[in-house]
Amino acid sequence: MLGNFTYCNPTKLYFGKGAIKYLNDELPKYGKKVVLIYGGGSIKKNGIYDEVIDILKSNGKDVAEISGVMPNPTVVKLYEGMDIARRHGADLLLAVGGGSVCDYAKALAVSVHCEGDPWEKYYIRFEEPVCPVVPVGCVLTMVGTGSEMNAGSVITNHAQKLKIGHVFADESIMPRFSVLDPVYTLTLPHYQMVAGIYDIFSHICEQYFSGEDDNTSDYISEGLFRSLLTSSRIANTDMQNYEARSNIMWTATWALNTLVSRGKTTDWMVHMLGQAVGAYTDATHGMTLAAVSMAYYRHILPYGLKKFVRFAQNVWGVSPEGKSDEQIACEGLAAMESWMKELGLVMNLTDLGVTADMVEGIADSTLVMQGGYKVLDRAEIVEIIKASL
Amino acid sequence: MLGNFTYCNPTKLYFGKGAIKYLNDELPKYGKKVVLIYGGGSIKKNGIYDEVIDILKSNGKDVAEISGVMPNPTVVKLYEGMDIARRHGADLLLAVGGGSVCDYAKALAVSVHCEGDPWEKYYIRFEEPVCPVVPVGCVLTMVGTGSEMNAGSVITNHAQKLKIGHVFADESIMPRFSVLDPVYTLTLPHYQMVAGIYDIFSHICEQYFSGEDDNTSDYISEGLFRSLLTSSRIANTDMQNYEARSNIMWTATWALNTLVSRGKTTDWMVHMLGQAVGAYTDATHGMTLAAVSMAYYRHILPYGLKKFVRFAQNVWGVSPEGKSDEQIACEGLAAMESWMKELGLVMNLTDLGVTADMVEGIADSTLVMQGGYKVLDRAEIVEIIKASL
Repeated sequence: MLGNFTYCNPTKLYFGKGAIKYLNDELPKYGKKVVLIYGGGSIKKNGIYDEVIDILKSNGKDVAEISGVMPNPTVVKLYEGMDIARRHGADLLLAVGGGSVCDYAKALAVSVHCEGDPWEKYYIRFEEPVCPVVPVGCVLTMVGTGSEMNAGSVITNHAQKLKIGHVFADESIMPRFSVLDPVYTLTLPHYQMVAGIYDIFSHICEQYFSGEDDNTSDYISEGLFRSLLTSSRIANTDMQNYEARSNIMWTATWALNTLVSRGKTTDWMVHMLGQAVGAYTDATHGMTLAAVSMAYYRHILPYGLKKFVRFAQNVWGVSPEGKSDEQIACEGLAAMESWMKELGLVMNLTDLGVTADMVEGIADSTLVMQGGYKVLDRAEIVEIIKASL
Repeated sequence: MLGNFTYCNPTKLYFGKGAIKYLNDELPKYGKKVVLIYGGGSIKKNGIYDEVIDILKSNGKDVAEISGVMPNPTVVKLYEGMDIARRHGADLLLAVGGGSVCDYAKALAVSVHCEGDPWEKYYIRFEEPVCPVVPVGCVLTMVGTGSEMNAGSVITNHAQKLKIGHVFADESIMPRFSVLDPVYTLTLPHYQMVAGIYDIFSHICEQYFSGEDDNTSDYISEGLFRSLLTSSRIANTDMQNYEARSNIMWTATWALNTLVSRGKTTDWMVHMLGQAVGAYTDATHGMTLAAVSMAYYRHILPYGLKKFVRFAQNVWGVSPEGKSDEQIACEGLAAMESWMKELGLVMNLTDLGVTADMVEGIADSTLVMQGGYKVLDRAEIVEIIKASL
């Protein structure tokens, strides 16, 4: 059954080689005070920083900077950015980086004019902003999170050992525009590229594995899966292949801009597990997802058998002839595991630095959601984490 | 190769049973003066008119009406509506109906404040509006055109024997909101339902059949095709099946809101042929497309062989074993033809009232576009029309 829903996604996307020039069309729509937000400084090495600064200057902008946004942006960094944006009187927050930088910019967008503590308000109590939201623009340099076209934002609180994502309801929190130039992603190391690819894959999985009907969203998801498999195999051995990288970039956007979850329920349990691991280890997000996925999917397979059969046939091309549903479903997961190994993903938590004594803590940090095939109890969570070691 | 493009589609969609209530959220955003636009009056019989009027009144709106918008809205009707909307000082154009009513509302949106003749300006010279655009909202009662989430508008000029579509570049011409309640489509006669289904199918085809690469758009298209095939077969024998009808409605929206053409070239030649037939016969749009499709696709098959092979395998499940590419491709088209017959579509132009003496005139009215597998010359167009008789 396609349930009731609303859909609105007004982000304007500029896609392709040289798309950065469209900043010149967007910047005049906002006031003079821009806060430029970026990460560890790789954009200074590859020239993107200079390109953006030139365009900002030629548009007469007064620019403040927030640099050093980390892969799992922290609440401490958020407080620091609030100070900078407030003092500057930010009219526009321009994120230049990957999903973390973009997530951070959105967290800042709802925090600059927020009364009270945004962590408590947005990430613990999941409230919606009542204050004015500062517009966000994005220049994407890393692919995976889909943050460039959604209203989601994940923030980590190390003191509380929590990494929590909030998908805001108001579309004004989505980036007003995003520049997607696949060339910007070509300098990424292989490890980051494949972690991003698995993040995309996991986003589609999280929304695909619920329900057993013929929902249009599931058919679109299968198209995205197939596109990603084809392109990821090309990019894995030929990282400079523009066609493959551009298709991966575009697939990432549609894997998580709310389209393929329309009419469905979702529990995002792989992300809940992965984020708990992230809060403990600071490991690369996509790798935390990869490390827990096989144990999780094998655990829930009996509860969503029909969908796993469909997944095996429509995504992995498993032939059903002469096989039981269980066999077909297991062959699908085996094909997925073999693709993950082919990409060189991290397949267990030990390789991410998780030790046996962390298991209970990670289980404590795992938020249990409803809407999937099986609401996990604590014993099951512990079992999945142990099986992933 | 995924070419450069922009994407922006800000229409807010309210989808599902009872979604009409969201008009109460949208109407306060606009001024008091609403022009209600509808077709032949079926909305008065099925109660939708009363429902909408009640909501408009309870929101304090001052309502003028344009009724009798025909299936292929004419330029004469456009001029009539311009008068009404100007005298009323329209703040919002509310279209209640199918694609024709919605297309008409968008034509009106760019014409109310237009200096000069909108037909000449927008449909002959394909100019973009420089005047203010009146906002459009849509309550969809018929499925197929995707007009509820795009900036396209097709207008027919009987005097000039032309039916021309213009996809405007500015997203402000897209409906600001659209209400999509599948229940509203359940009273449609079978003929209209299957014509709409084929219109959707044709939209996907028009965007799918260009290029031979692994473009993400093509994978998404294959998902939409497969969803539509499944749901159309259910709806064909069980028209009241809400699940199938809701999936068809949602597929229609995504088949023509620009997503699946991103990064591709398109020539829309089935629509060019069908629209020429429509200008001559006033036949139902989807049926004009059905009647010319097989002859057209069999004609261009040699020029896009690889894509037709992919279509056969990924959409129709044709097994490639022991067959030549030509055989696989032809089996795909045969499967498509058999599905069309199963739905009861009109498979030739004769059944739509086309006679041999109209062939040259229809060829004259066919706009020849570039971007597909073969730019048709006049002899080829005549040949395709004759083969479709």
